[in-house]
Amino acid sequence: MDINASMTDWSLGAAYVDGQVSPIKDAKIPMTDWGYRRSDVTYDVVGVYYGAFFRLDDHIRRFRASMDKLRLSPEESNEDIVRILTGLVQRTGLREAYVAMDCLRGKPLPGLPYHPAYGRAYLACFAIPWVWLFTEEQQARGVHALIAKTPRIPDASVDPTVKNFHWGDLTRASFEAHDAGFDTAVLLDHEGFLTEGPGFNVFAVIDGTVVSPPRGALEGITRLSVKELCAELGIPHDIRPVSRDDLEQADEVFFSTTAGGIMPVSRLGSRILGNDRPGPLSARLRETFWAKRREGWHATPITYGTAA
Amino acid sequence: MDINASMTDWSLGAAYVDGQVSPIKDAKIPMTDWGYRRSDVTYDVVGVYYGAFFRLDDHIRRFRASMDKLRLSPEESNEDIVRILTGLVQRTGLREAYVAMDCLRGKPLPGLPYHPAYGRAYLACFAIPWVWLFTEEQQARGVHALIAKTPRIPDASVDPTVKNFHWGDLTRASFEAHDAGFDTAVLLDHEGFLTEGPGFNVFAVIDGTVVSPPRGALEGITRLSVKELCAELGIPHDIRPVSRDDLEQADEVFFSTTAGGIMPVSRLGSRILGNDRPGPLSARLRETFWAKRREGWHATPITYGTAA
Repeated sequence: MDINASMTDWSLGAAYVDGQVSPIKDAKIPMTDWGYRRSDVTYDVVGVYYGAFFRLDDHIRRFRASMDKLRLSPEESNEDIVRILTGLVQRTGLREAYVAMDCLRGKPLPGLPYHPAYGRAYLACFAIPWVWLFTEEQQARGVHALIAKTPRIPDASVDPTVKNFHWGDLTRASFEAHDAGFDTAVLLDHEGFLTEGPGFNVFAVIDGTVVSPPRGALEGITRLSVKELCAELGIPHDIRPVSRDDLEQADEVFFSTTAGGIMPVSRLGSRILGNDRPGPLSARLRETFWAKRREGWHATPITYGTAA
Repeated sequence: MDINASMTDWSLGAAYVDGQVSPIKDAKIPMTDWGYRRSDVTYDVVGVYYGAFFRLDDHIRRFRASMDKLRLSPEESNEDIVRILTGLVQRTGLREAYVAMDCLRGKPLPGLPYHPAYGRAYLACFAIPWVWLFTEEQQARGVHALIAKTPRIPDASVDPTVKNFHWGDLTRASFEAHDAGFDTAVLLDHEGFLTEGPGFNVFAVIDGTVVSPPRGALEGITRLSVKELCAELGIPHDIRPVSRDDLEQADEVFFSTTAGGIMPVSRLGSRILGNDRPGPLSARLRETFWAKRREGWHATPITYGTAA
């Protein structure tokens, strides 16, 4: 904790680590914690925009499902988590925030077997100023993405529906993209089918249908929103495997992520999509997404000015 | 840092995090660090026994190679790392210690692109009392290991020769083993060939030859020691793929790890090896290993009583 808390600029972020609230700069994880040392941790991220959480209940539900799958049982209930996250955002006063919740396995405990079954799981959460995964310029011109050589970790080894920090493949792909002058990368699985990218789901528009893969990827909350928007706008939508060829021949490609919503792609490897600009369907989905967000779609408004 | 450092029991462990020395309990990693949040980190562990490091240079060399492969360039040189680790062990006074060195990617920095290429990598190291991966009882009776259903993360996705914290598959396999009453698990790759287990390399003794796999596993320093011991004792040794059948039909199975040396296995799934006791060749290697350690094999002695 900061010695002189009154000097702390909470607008930079606030954190809750195992029951203790602190400014973000003091939010730290023990070096010996399995959550770090074995990446034995799951997390979720919910966005705050226009002073409201987006799909908060969906994020909490997915976070709890992830914890259950890893057999992590922190002491906090779902209602506690909502209170904690709300309190952190209130404290920062941020109307646009990136709000993370992690559940870590804990440290090996003296006198107990050295096995994760004997860890004491706990929560670590924070709220920081909103993060755009891609800059406004990148969004306006369309994201430039490389199809990475690095294959995604298979589902059988690490379940991608449990949101996790096993980013070795995603990070390696990010370096491939960076070296080749791209903004980011999309990854295929070991059989050559589309999975996801570093921090986002991927969609291909094929013969007028918006398609995203059934496996190898997080079941994104923004991805779910895309499905709902398609239904509302009368755009055909399908969940099915997308081969490399499908992807390279797609009319449009776009990404979805909590950290930015819907992100059109204008270049995919050596291919220039459309007119080197966001495709019409991607742009329409993006505009509709933000218009509905402004109107309070799936919103949980935050009351500011009441935090301690 | 502890407010009253004179009360600190350094024998519990000492740490060095990005230039700062502290008792182990105060050694922490920022929650927003990519080293935690993306598991964008590599590490190594060197053992201290009989008051000396074992194969210190080999560990430092491997650690540097891992950092280079991930493009992590902390400010410390190899000589600095040796000084830091030695100083930590001296401070604790431990003659048997588990000494870890991590290199983390660092946090996203303001004003720079949100990409790991722009991280400021740094070191975090600690020395704590020696950890046996398996208890003395488990070692004496032989380890009981399950062949896990969970397949190891493939080399193409995450390079296992870069020591890493992507333990999701290993942790899941550990739970499989725990649920079935085993001490630990060994993992096969997606084609059914032997890889490694949570924290150790695996060897099968097949027709008198000590065999370990060429892929899918860390290039263990203790594994290298096994190769040297085999040469010295005139035991045939080979690096080649080991199928599930090979493994299940092996005369003996044993593990190697910094956290315990050579660990014979007496049960592998439903199979009871030998007489439900460590096999003769495994036992001989283990005894020779510790006898040579006592005699100063590959040792870098530590001078105690000179730390500040």
